[in-house]
Parts: sequence; C-alpha cells; structure tokens
Amino acid sequence: MLRTLLAVSITAALALNASSAAAETVSTERHKVSITSLTNKLDKPWGMSFLPSGELLVTEKSGALRRVKLDGSISVPLTGVPSVVNKSQGGLLDVAVDPNFADNNYVYISYSEADPQGGEGNSTAVMRATLTDTGLTNGKVIFRGAPKYKSGAHFGSRLVFAPDGHLFITLGDRYSAMDDAQTLDNHHGKVVRIKPDGSVPSDNPFVGKDDALPEIWSYGHRNVQGAAIHPTTGKLWTVEHGPKGGDEINIPEAGKNYGWPIATYGVDYDGSIISDKTHVEGTIQPHYYWVPSIATSNMIFYTGDKFPAWQGDLLVAALKGSQVARLDLEGDRVMHEETLFEQAVEQRIRDIEQGPDGYIYLITDDRAGQLIQIKPAE
Amino acid sequence: MLRTLLAVSITAALALNASSAAAETVSTERHKVSITSLTNKLDKPWGMSFLPSGELLVTEKSGALRRVKLDGSISVPLTGVPSVVNKSQGGLLDVAVDPNFADNNYVYISYSEADPQGGEGNSTAVMRATLTDTGLTNGKVIFRGAPKYKSGAHFGSRLVFAPDGHLFITLGDRYSAMDDAQTLDNHHGKVVRIKPDGSVPSDNPFVGKDDALPEIWSYGHRNVQGAAIHPTTGKLWTVEHGPKGGDEINIPEAGKNYGWPIATYGVDYDGSIISDKTHVEGTIQPHYYWVPSIATSNMIFYTGDKFPAWQGDLLVAALKGSQVARLDLEGDRVMHEETLFEQAVEQRIRDIEQGPDGYIYLITDDRAGQLIQIKPAE
Ligand SMILES: [Ca+2]
Ligand SMILES: [Ca+2]
Repeated sequence: MLRTLLAVSITAALALNASSAAAETVSTERHKVSITSLTNKLDKPWGMSFLPSGELLVTEKSGALRRVKLDGSISVPLTGVPSVVNKSQGGLLDVAVDPNFADNNYVYISYSEADPQGGEGNSTAVMRATLTDTGLTNGKVIFRGAPKYKSGAHFGSRLVFAPDGHLFITLGDRYSAMDDAQTLDNHHGKVVRIKPDGSVPSDNPFVGKDDALPEIWSYGHRNVQGAAIHPTTGKLWTVEHGPKGGDEINIPEAGKNYGWPIATYGVDYDGSIISDKTHVEGTIQPHYYWVPSIATSNMIFYTGDKFPAWQGDLLVAALKGSQVARLDLEGDRVMHEETLFEQAVEQRIRDIEQGPDGYIYLITDDRAGQLIQIKPAE
Repeated sequence: MLRTLLAVSITAALALNASSAAAETVSTERHKVSITSLTNKLDKPWGMSFLPSGELLVTEKSGALRRVKLDGSISVPLTGVPSVVNKSQGGLLDVAVDPNFADNNYVYISYSEADPQGGEGNSTAVMRATLTDTGLTNGKVIFRGAPKYKSGAHFGSRLVFAPDGHLFITLGDRYSAMDDAQTLDNHHGKVVRIKPDGSVPSDNPFVGKDDALPEIWSYGHRNVQGAAIHPTTGKLWTVEHGPKGGDEINIPEAGKNYGWPIATYGVDYDGSIISDKTHVEGTIQPHYYWVPSIATSNMIFYTGDKFPAWQGDLLVAALKGSQVARLDLEGDRVMHEETLFEQAVEQRIRDIEQGPDGYIYLITDDRAGQLIQIKPAE
C-alpha cells in the first residue's frame, strides 16, 4: 500500500516538477522516517559521492559522470571521462572524492576498461583526475585489473579511502574465472590497496613475494560491491555477493583468504547446498552472512546526528527487495538486523551514502533511476 | 501447504496409533530434516530432560511429572511432586537431571509455589528429589524465590548445571514488579546460582554485601525462560522475553546488570519506541536481540553428530511462529540467523533438547501437546 502510494505520489510530483518531490513517511523500529525522491531522471546510476559543496557526483553505468544537486537538478555529462565497456554488469561504476579534495580537486572513478591491445578482454580500472566545473582533466589510470578477461560480470568496484590515505579498491572474480580468487598472480576476487597516485604501499602483505601481485590486500572474494571504513576502528569492512545465498560481510585483513570459491554459505534455490564446505582451513569465516541473498550493493556506517538511534550502525543497501539492512553493532559484533525501507522504495538500491547534512541518500538501479533522501519524519 | 499436510498426516496417524507417527520432510539451508510427532497426548508440557536410560522426564504445567518414552508412551503422573500454583503462567515448570544422576538419582523441578504462610503471593521454587520408578522421594526445596508476590506472570525458570556443578536458576520479574529487577534485595529478574543442595557458593558476586541476596548471579533480566551452557567456553548463555520486541540473548557474568527495565530494545506494536534508552551506563548490552519478539522459550547448543552443519550452533525455540531460530556462531559471535521448522510445526514450542541419540526434540505448549523428534531426512 505504501509502495503504491509512493509510486503514485512521486510520479505525480515529478510529472509537474522534478524538484518538488513527494515524501512518504515510514515507521522503523527506532525512527519514523520521511522518504523523498529528489529525481528519477538518472539513467542506471551506480556510484555517488558528496563534494564538499554538498553537491553529488553521480556515475551512470553507460558512461556519464554528472553533478547532481539536492534540488534534483542534474548536469550534462562531465567531459574527460574515459570510454567504458558498458555491457552486462560493466560500465562506469564508482566515484570517490579525495579526502583532501579542497586542496587537490582529485576525484577517482572505477570502470570496466577494454583491453588497450585490442583483445576481447576487459577489467576494472581506476582513474584519478582533477575535477573542474565541467569535467575531468589530467586523468591518470592508477589501477588496471589484471588480466584482461572476457566476461561481462563481477567487476567489484567500490573505492574507499582508509584513514591513513590509502585507497582500497574492491574487485570481483569475473564469474567464470572464480578459481582465480584463490591465486595471487591476478586481481580477480581481490581487495586491492594502493596509494592515490597508483603506487604500491611498501607494507602491502604480498610485496616482494614471488607470483603475487603487490597491490593485493586480501583474496578469496567473490564480488565485492560495498565497502566502508569503520568510524572508530578505522578498519575496512566489505560486503560481497554470494552465489545463491551467502552474501558476506568481511573485515578484510592484510594477506588473509576469505574463502571463495572453496568455502561458501551459498545454497541452491531448491535448498540443496552448493558446497558442504563452509569452513576450510586457512580461510576466514564471514563476519556476518545472508541466506538467502539480499544482493548487497554498497554500505555505510551511519555517524550523523539526524538518526541518533542509528549511530554506529552498519547500513547495507541491497538490490533484492529494495531494502537497506540495518545491522546494530556492539563493537564489531552484530546484535540485531532490521530491514529498512523495504515497502517504500520500489527499485533496486545501488548505492548508499550519508550526506554532510546527516541525511541518508540512496540511488536506484533503473533507467528512471532515483536519488532518494531519507530524513527523520517531522 | 506443508503445515496442512503435516497436521493432516499426524492427526491421521495418531488417530490410529500414537506410536506409529507420521513424518514430514522439511528443507533447511544445510540439512533436509524429518519431523515426527511422537505423541500429542501431553497436557501443556513445559520442561523436559533426558535420563541416562534415554527416557524423558516431562513436566506438565498443571502439576504432573511424567516419564515419556520415544515410542510415544507416557507414564501416569509420578508421585511426590509438590503442589504448584497452576494459574496463568505458573505451574510445574522445568525439570533437570543431575549430572551425576547415575550415582545419586537426583532430579530437580522448578514450579510456582504458594506462600507457605497462607498469603496471596507466590514465587518460583526449586525442589531436589530422588527419582524412583514411580515418583519422587526425599524432596527438599533448595531454592525459594523472594519475596512471595501476587502475580501470575514471569516465573522464569530454567534449570541448568554449570560444568563446575553449580546450578543456575533463571527467574522473571513477575511483570508488575519489574522495577525490582534493578535492586538486589529480591529475586525478581535475576539469574541465581546455588549448589545442588541449596547452599550458596562462597564465590557468588554478592556474598557478604549488604542488602543483596547472596544467591544472585546477575540482574536486570525480564523473564529468562531459556538457558544453556556453551559447550567449549563452559559459560552460561540465557535468553529472555522482551516486552514487545527486544527478546535478548545474554551471556550473564557474575554481578552484571543486564538493563531491564531501564534499558530495552522493545518497541510498541505501532512501531513507536517504548524507551529511547537502549544503552544505559553500567548495564550490559544484549549479545543478540529480536525485534519484533519471537517469544523465546528454551535453547540448546547443538553438539551432536546427526546434523554436522549445525554443530556448535545455538538453537533457540520460540512460542511465536512455532519456530526455532538457528544462530550460526563463530566463537561467541552470531554470523547468521536461520528460521527452522516454521512451516512444519503448528504449535508453540516450549522446550528444546538434544537427545543422547543426537536428534533434536521439541515439546509444544498445547492441551494436545506434542513431543516432536527431528532427524536427518533419509
Ligand atoms: Ca567468504
Ligand atoms: Ca537487557
């Protein structure tokens, strides 16, 4: 019912004026919230990141990077974006703003990049560039996944900065190359850690090891599309898609093996198990997992003052059920899970961010993709 | 559909012969299980405990203690059971078998006991007695909750033995006396630790403290009806009913305050919060909690060989939804929750035990109360 009301009222409002959006009020365990669609004019948005100005940078999978304001206005595509392989799950993916943006104007984008040699393969790449009013300049590819591989699936590719300034890039196993997640001579199924200029930190766990790529931070991942830094421990947390069930939260530590594909909690749709190996010697158990899958996208630790009862909680956005899973944490431990917004948002949620205003923002994976603002209800 | 099938088939089978029960097969994430009702002739059973012989002792709330065999046969009421206040939530409650039963033949029962002075109050009491073929003899009341209080609600009262031989008794706040859970001069809302003869261990946390009852182990509980000892740490784990939401698992430590009623995750049925105080200085956060409530009854750590993928998991039985919540643990941490048997068992589950055979047994809170056996499906 809420779903219908929301759809109708948003559609009506947007037909008149994209900036005078309708709001729907939804109850949750601890906060009544107001959900507003600020625009539905985004074309399959994938990643977003706030600029210090309060404006958003938003990627669209087809290759456009846009400035989006909270009044719902959307810029023309920025110039200087590299060409991307917009096919299946590939395209222009995440965008991150440098922690020192005010000084250096750097932004970072991840995308599926064709083989520069003209081969049929592709891989996740990351470019750093200087943001101008209308585009990107001085673009430099600071990471290029290896090998180039012919697949349209499992690119990863969230970008998050650690407190020490290192950049984590989360990657996928490229699906048919899943076994590569267990070997270190490739970037498939890895989390990578580099300096923002693309150089390799000397304290990365596999630096100087034979047959290991030095960018690798952790391995044995499937398709890591969510990442966030814990606000008090400063540690990287990631969330990855399981095969059919077994979506996992991990707290990837240097050099550790997170098990895919030799250990998984995935189960088949008929309830029969994919593997009886949930524990394999030498691999790390997930910190938390979902069966069935909720199809996790990105996640944030909420640290704002607008939703006091959610402070410190982990909010995990999901494609399936258009939900955000709220994990109530005590230290690192999950005490409780609540499903938020499931009845209120009709589209798959692709990214979640906390605004500088303390509100929560979602973008949805749709040709009429929305930017959604979550505020406390009056 | 499964529900209907099971109800029909069990009813049919029992009409013919209580001992030739029907089995229903149910899929879960990691095991296909076979669910068999061994009898439906128990009258509101509350607690059960296996004897070394493989036979069960089962309490019925109205005051009967019976021997029950796995062929479904049920003895006449055993003699020597004290009179109980069988009113509202009160009655004959849990039963435990002494860890050294083979040597001493001791069993323990908890029950709501009237005021021996003839007052209107009652409280949870625990009797130790010697089990004979047909009854209890040499009954001795080893614990008597104080004060006697006029209420029909929240008696607690699971009985579990620690590896060191101490007996834990879990209690309730008697509902209208909830504030007592925060003071130490009474047994309301407490977990109690005594020796099996009723004496107080000298290392109990409040021994020798003014205005504190020396039996108290932990406080600030609401209504603790489930308890189990962790198989590797040897620590007590408990589960308690929340008010409306906020059912909690705790790992009660000596002298600690678990918050009720000053801190709770309960929420009202309309989604408004009961208290904004989920964290109060000096109280311990739950280890895990449920909103909405599942109405937790008892729980076990599964340690058998019949369900290998469940070894080490915490199985929490619930009145609501007739479910068993399986909590997949890594160390003490909950990694995942699965709801088991929800579609297959139609009655409220009051107690859960692991048999000496490694199968799982449930009893249901009904006038046609069942004893249910869970085995791996062929
Ligand atoms: Ca894993
Ligand atoms: Ca508590």
